[in-house]
Amino acid sequence: MPNISQKGRLMPSSPIRKLVPYAEEAYKAGKTVYHLNIGQPDIKTPQIALDAVKTHSLDIIAYTRSEGSEAYRNKIANYYKTNDISVNSNDIIVTTGGSEALLFAFGSVMDIDDEIIIPEPFYANYNGFSTASGVNVVPVISKIEDNFALPPIEEFEKLITPKTKAILICNPGNPTGYLYSKEEIRKLANIVKKYNLFLIADEVYREFAYDGHTHHSILQEDDIKEHAIVIDSVSKRYSMCGARIGYLVSKNKELISTALKFAQARLSPPTLAQIASEAALDTPQSYFDNVITDYVSRRDTLINELEKIEGVTVAKPNGAFYCIAELPIKNADRFAQWLLESFDIDNETVMVAPAGGFYSTPGMGLNQIRIAYVLNEDSLVKAVNILKQALKVYND
Amino acid sequence: MPNISQKGRLMPSSPIRKLVPYAEEAYKAGKTVYHLNIGQPDIKTPQIALDAVKTHSLDIIAYTRSEGSEAYRNKIANYYKTNDISVNSNDIIVTTGGSEALLFAFGSVMDIDDEIIIPEPFYANYNGFSTASGVNVVPVISKIEDNFALPPIEEFEKLITPKTKAILICNPGNPTGYLYSKEEIRKLANIVKKYNLFLIADEVYREFAYDGHTHHSILQEDDIKEHAIVIDSVSKRYSMCGARIGYLVSKNKELISTALKFAQARLSPPTLAQIASEAALDTPQSYFDNVITDYVSRRDTLINELEKIEGVTVAKPNGAFYCIAELPIKNADRFAQWLLESFDIDNETVMVAPAGGFYSTPGMGLNQIRIAYVLNEDSLVKAVNILKQALKVYND
Ligand SMILES: Cc1ncc(COP(=O)(O)O)c(C=O)c1O
Ligand SMILES: Cc1ncc(COP(=O)(O)O)c(C=O)c1O
Repeated sequence: MPNISQKGRLMPSSPIRKLVPYAEEAYKAGKTVYHLNIGQPDIKTPQIALDAVKTHSLDIIAYTRSEGSEAYRNKIANYYKTNDISVNSNDIIVTTGGSEALLFAFGSVMDIDDEIIIPEPFYANYNGFSTASGVNVVPVISKIEDNFALPPIEEFEKLITPKTKAILICNPGNPTGYLYSKEEIRKLANIVKKYNLFLIADEVYREFAYDGHTHHSILQEDDIKEHAIVIDSVSKRYSMCGARIGYLVSKNKELISTALKFAQARLSPPTLAQIASEAALDTPQSYFDNVITDYVSRRDTLINELEKIEGVTVAKPNGAFYCIAELPIKNADRFAQWLLESFDIDNETVMVAPAGGFYSTPGMGLNQIRIAYVLNEDSLVKAVNILKQALKVYND
Repeated sequence: MPNISQKGRLMPSSPIRKLVPYAEEAYKAGKTVYHLNIGQPDIKTPQIALDAVKTHSLDIIAYTRSEGSEAYRNKIANYYKTNDISVNSNDIIVTTGGSEALLFAFGSVMDIDDEIIIPEPFYANYNGFSTASGVNVVPVISKIEDNFALPPIEEFEKLITPKTKAILICNPGNPTGYLYSKEEIRKLANIVKKYNLFLIADEVYREFAYDGHTHHSILQEDDIKEHAIVIDSVSKRYSMCGARIGYLVSKNKELISTALKFAQARLSPPTLAQIASEAALDTPQSYFDNVITDYVSRRDTLINELEKIEGVTVAKPNGAFYCIAELPIKNADRFAQWLLESFDIDNETVMVAPAGGFYSTPGMGLNQIRIAYVLNEDSLVKAVNILKQALKVYND
């Protein structure tokens, strides 16, 4: 039998995947499982996007341009302008989800064994894209006691080597829910200028900013035009994760023309999904207002309930729809498995994401879990109660 | 300004892209351009696939499983069974086009600087996927005078080194139109067994086999189950290139579980397109019969007309919808540009793909062009006539 590549062997599998068989056993046993572990919102996709594909008039589902259809890219540029971000259609490449935008960005700025600094905990698939690209993640630790704010900039500086090519942030953060302030973005702008690095900002949760905070994009820092690469996506914004539409945005023309070569090799982003996503840009503001109201009240409920549990520390999120909770346990992997295998209240249990998978420093986050508040409030209250009762009886 | 990666600089741009500005100038000058250069069929997508998205009942366009929806994968397995290929749903990963299947296959079997042997001329984007994956293409020359048949197996053997991990074929071939015989596939099976290599077969044109020939898949060779990886796609089969649905198929479980990790990192293939593609599997046979009849008669017209031109050699294709023609010129790049810039008959001209971009050995194929017969017959006849008149006056 021929050998699998070293790279293939090193590719991480999703930190949640390991739990899936236990969840399946729980279903078989007739248990209800509240999924606090997933990033797939339960919010309806805007009707206007659903209708656009229902009323399409295509005879042939043909390739679009590799950078995305002209009409769609023009409308995206308008969306950014409305959000005080001045870009035009030439600065945008439509990708197959934010995922592909990340891959193109990594490929365009890094070679084998280059390094990218990422505050941890971070979106676990950054590891996968790094392995696939043959580059190394260098983590800088952000702390639950600071609400996962930007680590001191000196901590970044300590890690910079000749192999460092970029800093990657996720704003607001998955899994932290932390929204960076304008001042924090400014600090990052200064450091990438000083060391001549790219600054990649994964802004796929941009719209999810709460409590009167506004999102500040790296594209709003005029003096880092050549450094800034934004990763964006329709997945969460319009609750249309399955569309697989994202974008890579940069004012750096050489970067865009390089990323375009990666895009050309794969021919085209999905055509039907571009139709839906273009229509989604006309979603009325009331849709987003309702969504934000929903998430804020879910978050408040979740945090309130979690804070009532003895021994639990939780970082209050200002954005996205995740939070990290530290539990009075030793090993969240074992705990998450035990919840599915051995615990229930009236035949109901919960599935949580152990946070270890969001750290790249070994041993970090072992007593933490990530909770996604993509469930309705009744379910959230029930789910947190299950967690509470479970912690009372759990022996670690 | 921070530096673009070496890899990004090495990424090839599409061999046709260079001509696009000249085509645009020709449009502006009011010329009609017959596109013999493209791989986007003019055939209608099956109605059943178009309707499936029109009548979808989704409330949320959600992620599917990373390997594709269960229902769809089961139906794909049935499709293969009907085609005498015995695989089941676990052997299939649904990808974002055959393009992504190629990337996953490359990543799963090769590390940096490993080598993959490919008969040339070959699909130009194999170069892009190789560069993106950091691996090297080792070409083995197939010849127009042999109709681009499989090169002698000794030619492959000469090129095998410890870095060789796979042989990649395209069957039937883009750009050659050559359909490998059962005997040729058998020879490849023997060599990959002997040297313990993977055999990757890009079978995206499988359905397009003419003149009573049937396509022979590498998955039909029982003794290379652990070696065989098939790349497939709905793009050409159902004329739905913009769906972006393909598959990676292998009986090698380790290979599948490795490719699945790449798939998990990017979450999900497109959901709407899976709905369309699942429905497309119920396309009535009459659709394909008509398509094949069309292509055969287009091919016959094209080859007949080409053979009438003095100094033109053409390899008669048995499959796909491309052919390579050798012209009495020195440099097809210059000729193709000249056609767009300086030649017309009654304000009509043609765009062809210079074949140099399909070779990886420098200097090969410079006097060849690839012609795609995705135009109706009237247009084909007109286009070939333009080519003929052009060759009469062209000074190289
Ligand atoms: C932080 C972050 N970035 C990127 C993605 C990728 O999303 P997609 O490829 O669906 O746009 C996700 C999905 O969960 C995410 O959480
Ligand atoms: C030989 C070959 N392989 C793969 C592809 C990729 O097609 P897709 O990604 O649309 O499935 C093409 C497209 O033209 C092709 O010609």
